[in-house]
Amino acid sequence: MTQSIKSRAAVAWAPNQPLSIEEVDVMPPQAGEVRIRVVASGVCHTDAYTLSGEDPEGNFPAIMGHEGGGIVESVGEGVTSLQVGDHVIPLYTPECGECKLCVSGKTNLCQKIRDTQGKGLMPDGTSRFSLNGEPILHYMGCSTFSEYTVLPEIALAKVSKEAPLEEVCLLGCGVTTGMGAVMNTAKVEEGDTVAIFGMGGIGLSAVIGATMAKASRIIAIDINESKFELARQLGATDCINPNDYDKPIQEVITELTDGGVDYSFECIGNVDVMRSALECCHKGWGESVIIGVAGAGQEISTRPFQLVTGRVWKGSAFGGVKGRTELPGLVERYMQGEFRLDDFITHTMGLDDINHAFDLMHEGKSIRSVIHFNK
Amino acid sequence: MTQSIKSRAAVAWAPNQPLSIEEVDVMPPQAGEVRIRVVASGVCHTDAYTLSGEDPEGNFPAIMGHEGGGIVESVGEGVTSLQVGDHVIPLYTPECGECKLCVSGKTNLCQKIRDTQGKGLMPDGTSRFSLNGEPILHYMGCSTFSEYTVLPEIALAKVSKEAPLEEVCLLGCGVTTGMGAVMNTAKVEEGDTVAIFGMGGIGLSAVIGATMAKASRIIAIDINESKFELARQLGATDCINPNDYDKPIQEVITELTDGGVDYSFECIGNVDVMRSALECCHKGWGESVIIGVAGAGQEISTRPFQLVTGRVWKGSAFGGVKGRTELPGLVERYMQGEFRLDDFITHTMGLDDINHAFDLMHEGKSIRSVIHFNK
Repeated sequence: MTQSIKSRAAVAWAPNQPLSIEEVDVMPPQAGEVRIRVVASGVCHTDAYTLSGEDPEGNFPAIMGHEGGGIVESVGEGVTSLQVGDHVIPLYTPECGECKLCVSGKTNLCQKIRDTQGKGLMPDGTSRFSLNGEPILHYMGCSTFSEYTVLPEIALAKVSKEAPLEEVCLLGCGVTTGMGAVMNTAKVEEGDTVAIFGMGGIGLSAVIGATMAKASRIIAIDINESKFELARQLGATDCINPNDYDKPIQEVITELTDGGVDYSFECIGNVDVMRSALECCHKGWGESVIIGVAGAGQEISTRPFQLVTGRVWKGSAFGGVKGRTELPGLVERYMQGEFRLDDFITHTMGLDDINHAFDLMHEGKSIRSVIHFNK
Repeated sequence: MTQSIKSRAAVAWAPNQPLSIEEVDVMPPQAGEVRIRVVASGVCHTDAYTLSGEDPEGNFPAIMGHEGGGIVESVGEGVTSLQVGDHVIPLYTPECGECKLCVSGKTNLCQKIRDTQGKGLMPDGTSRFSLNGEPILHYMGCSTFSEYTVLPEIALAKVSKEAPLEEVCLLGCGVTTGMGAVMNTAKVEEGDTVAIFGMGGIGLSAVIGATMAKASRIIAIDINESKFELARQLGATDCINPNDYDKPIQEVITELTDGGVDYSFECIGNVDVMRSALECCHKGWGESVIIGVAGAGQEISTRPFQLVTGRVWKGSAFGGVKGRTELPGLVERYMQGEFRLDDFITHTMGLDDINHAFDLMHEGKSIRSVIHFNK
């Protein structure tokens, strides 16, 4: 019989406060749940967004983190697809295989546990974390800023034990989001032209996806030119700083590409850039994919003529990737050298230094900081 | 050698003025051009929109009309695909088969003669119409409110001589636009659920398209309930008046359809309705197609979350139909009884009564008035 376990965790007590390292209690997994030992976790902009207090769905106190890799420590009643020792990547977009959305075959947006997950709770409506008997909430159904965490079985992708969890943890969010948007959502094909707005982790991952898809032209757009060197290394053919031009960036790109690109991707979360991304697409067929998460209440807009003349506006969450079905294969492709992850990992540190990771992000100095729990 | 010909035509001298019937001169077709005798022409909302002065691309004086059927009277030098006596439907969206957009295979938006067409001129930059020696402009490259008109060869679809031009003229715009948006742009399949906003000629044509595609549920939305009887006859399964509800129509439809429809169509040109149409689509896969033409400068908007969670926003012009390639087949399907056109034709009249057709439209009393030139 499994017992509660002590776990070092970074707790977010309130918006805009540094995380504090606490020794929390992690309950045993209940029916259909799995407790894992987290080996590593990336620190993502979405963690920072929620921590800023701007996320209307943010709940406190909570244990954040959603881009992790871990090893199954114990399993609850009825869990059949995982066993102790399996290597797993937590999924903030689970895959139950049974809900209307899963069975549709048209989307990765499983809705089975959406309501409780949004409230920071497990599917039974309670939390597995506590400190001095007071519950601490989960975050995005993952809470990977804790040495141990509990997830529903449907929110864990089993991956190769050969894969370094300190690197493939990035497939739990940013890298899969960017690559998947290009390969799954847009389905970029050989010879297509692509514009990618924002060279953060997701944008750079989109560059990798476009390179793997053999896009003929990959235009990277950012106002921070220090990102361009890595963008070029990963396959960007053109790097553009909108501040270098007097005219709107969509006009610059349209002229550069004889009418516009086949596909564009917004990887920032800026609604004005989302408009530019749509309007730099080619008349008749250009598709723009929104990946970035905009601030609460913000809206996108354009003239409907942009759509009537054949442009398509869509979005992508977790790259359109079904985690349990597709992530193991993506990890395999990584293992076979189809793409690299170490380019993204600019910093590694122990859990005690997690606030420094947020500082680096805010200062624009990191692509990804990865927390190693054994450090 | 062909000569100029006298032609009775309805001339729009200025915005918001009644059309005046004049006897204009129609020059012979130049190289690559064809002169046709117009047998019938529908009167479409787009004619009224331009006549209202709100169309920023409206030019005056011009001979309007763009939903016609006619017979080839003479052909210019180098015309090979048409000969005298052929029955044709004028195409405001031509099909050259050679431009970047035509050869892409991804769109029907041929750009070969777009610039001159937008200025009311033939491809050589001049007009074929004049009155007392002063040029009168073309309109949408068609000018079917004239007994005789001249078009480029690439802007004429050759159709069966068996088809009644007084009916199939409607395939020159409204009916093809609505049916094509459902079948070509959205590619609605058997069992899909559909919401169609606006039960004018285009919306009703979209109902026909959805019925032909065997959609399982076809929700017709309009604030004018007098449209519902015909909508039901054509296949609508639900008719909804948004004014009957206190909550936004997108919520009503989402509840009615267990999460939203698979496809929606905006057939009005109202940017607020365009938003409702998007937001009544199902999370994960619902697609909304804008067909209506909004007023100059108006913009659509929504929260990007709507797209990130899997909805797709697109548009359709002339139903995505390539006129010369596909219209002949659509006429064949009509001849074989797959759909009816007489349901749409609420009024017929001679050219002298054309202003009455606009009055009927503004009063909401007509679906389509068709001008018969032999009346």
